Amino acid sequence: MRCRMCKERAVISMRRHNTAFCRLHYREFFFRQVSRAIQEFGMLNPQEGVLVCVSGGKDSLVLWKVLHELGYKTRAMYIDLGFGEYSLLSKQKVFNTAKKLSQEPIVVSLKDMGFDILASAKAKHRPACSVCGTAKRYCFNRTAFEEGLQVVATGHNLDDEASRLLGNVLRWQTHYLAKQSPVLPSESEHTPKKVKPLVKLTEREVAVFAFLEGIDYILEECPYAKGATSITYKLLLAQLEEKMPGTKHAFYLGFQEHLSKFSLAEAPKGELKTCKVCGQDSFEETCGFCRLLGQLSP
Amino acid sequence: MRCRMCKERAVISMRRHNTAFCRLHYREFFFRQVSRAIQEFGMLNPQEGVLVCVSGGKDSLVLWKVLHELGYKTRAMYIDLGFGEYSLLSKQKVFNTAKKLSQEPIVVSLKDMGFDILASAKAKHRPACSVCGTAKRYCFNRTAFEEGLQVVATGHNLDDEASRLLGNVLRWQTHYLAKQSPVLPSESEHTPKKVKPLVKLTEREVAVFAFLEGIDYILEECPYAKGATSITYKLLLAQLEEKMPGTKHAFYLGFQEHLSKFSLAEAPKGELKTCKVCGQDSFEETCGFCRLLGQLSP
Repeated sequence: MRCRMCKERAVISMRRHNTAFCRLHYREFFFRQVSRAIQEFGMLNPQEGVLVCVSGGKDSLVLWKVLHELGYKTRAMYIDLGFGEYSLLSKQKVFNTAKKLSQEPIVVSLKDMGFDILASAKAKHRPACSVCGTAKRYCFNRTAFEEGLQVVATGHNLDDEASRLLGNVLRWQTHYLAKQSPVLPSESEHTPKKVKPLVKLTEREVAVFAFLEGIDYILEECPYAKGATSITYKLLLAQLEEKMPGTKHAFYLGFQEHLSKFSLAEAPKGELKTCKVCGQDSFEETCGFCRLLGQLSP
Repeated sequence: MRCRMCKERAVISMRRHNTAFCRLHYREFFFRQVSRAIQEFGMLNPQEGVLVCVSGGKDSLVLWKVLHELGYKTRAMYIDLGFGEYSLLSKQKVFNTAKKLSQEPIVVSLKDMGFDILASAKAKHRPACSVCGTAKRYCFNRTAFEEGLQVVATGHNLDDEASRLLGNVLRWQTHYLAKQSPVLPSESEHTPKKVKPLVKLTEREVAVFAFLEGIDYILEECPYAKGATSITYKLLLAQLEEKMPGTKHAFYLGFQEHLSKFSLAEAPKGELKTCKVCGQDSFEETCGFCRLLGQLSP
């Protein structure tokens, strides 16, 4: 297989684009896809400070590197979830990339905040992934506010977003569908704009880029995410993509084109208040995270 | 496994309903599901004459029998597609059920109308299934009009409709989504109301009912439908249903609940005219079927 641009040996072929690229032109392609997503969806402008949420996985570390090279004002944040060996290793991966980029990541430790995901999930009879989501969103918002950054960027790729969309569509979770845009605007000074600049790239495409760039990332999945339904949806979409290349792209990006027509109502939220514990935005007297935290206190 | 109602030996268990029934109570369940679909979607009233389109397959023959027993004024129509042995056999199956119901089906032969699906598909470079759809819709409309019947009923089941919906959703075919209701209203005296009373029942549930009722139906798929994408979608939905019973139902019937909110526009059609060849409704001077027919004439 030869590169479509220069006829050198290709390092990747992409059936959904009916093309193949050498190392150099794949790099160009990859940066172009990120830049286009940023432009098309109005994700970022060069004046805005961006908090890049890095987990130690390939997607978020790639995102950090690409946004940094594109000249955006990035600050990375790593949240230490307190999952033993897994957390130690993923933190190490973040510091490896930080060193290469000559940047210092912000580290937020849930343990230092007095929080324990597994204990909280048990106490509230909620899945660990759900509690983890609440804690992470809290850290995103709070850190962006404290650091004066207007935007939070996460490394969700096309596979992540298409599988989430499939799950929401199969049950017509219209409140969630309304929030499946790659850009969610800021709601107040306490909630930054949220963007997903990798939505035009598949998991495989991100992995190949990470490999070619020598980005050292954690290969293991989170030990508590096993059996998640999102994995079922990803496998189904992979089967469809195999038979009909371009399905994931048409499904997720086609949805974005039609989103405005569907007049999807978000869940009624009531009046935006200030959490009496932490001062962040909340629709209750105390925000979701502080309520979880309160339940763990002795 | 025991019947939920009477504790007799069950003939079928349904995970999506978390229940099981004996022969007698399954029959009651089946009729109830058809009656509920008719009520909920306002499909039929006892005064209306119903043209039941029967292919010789299980779904349409079951539909004919059930509507007949529920007391609706049914007339069955069989379209002879001219597919050799397959058509001969399917016609025989229709006549077997007709004899049991003491009803005479209307037989429409495409060959007698001077039409040949495969020749037309070849001449127009269209898939055979697409040409067949045009021809069948023409026969439905024309026969219903000529026989003075207000409604056309087809045997599409939950699997058929959920897989079609999945295909339309994956590519956001919003014009088709707008037409994925189990009831399509009449547009003029030439286009009858179209209804699908089996949408609350799965393919398996219809097959079990056909077996228990001794309905003799053709088991073979149409020889020209092989490799249809609808089969891919059915297999995927079957995998999901296996993991999460009730998925097909939630997907298809949930969509019906939300359909009105989505403000889906049908394709702009222009003014309704009368086909100058056959006198049926058309958005062009000559209707789609007469155009295909004209192309085959010497």
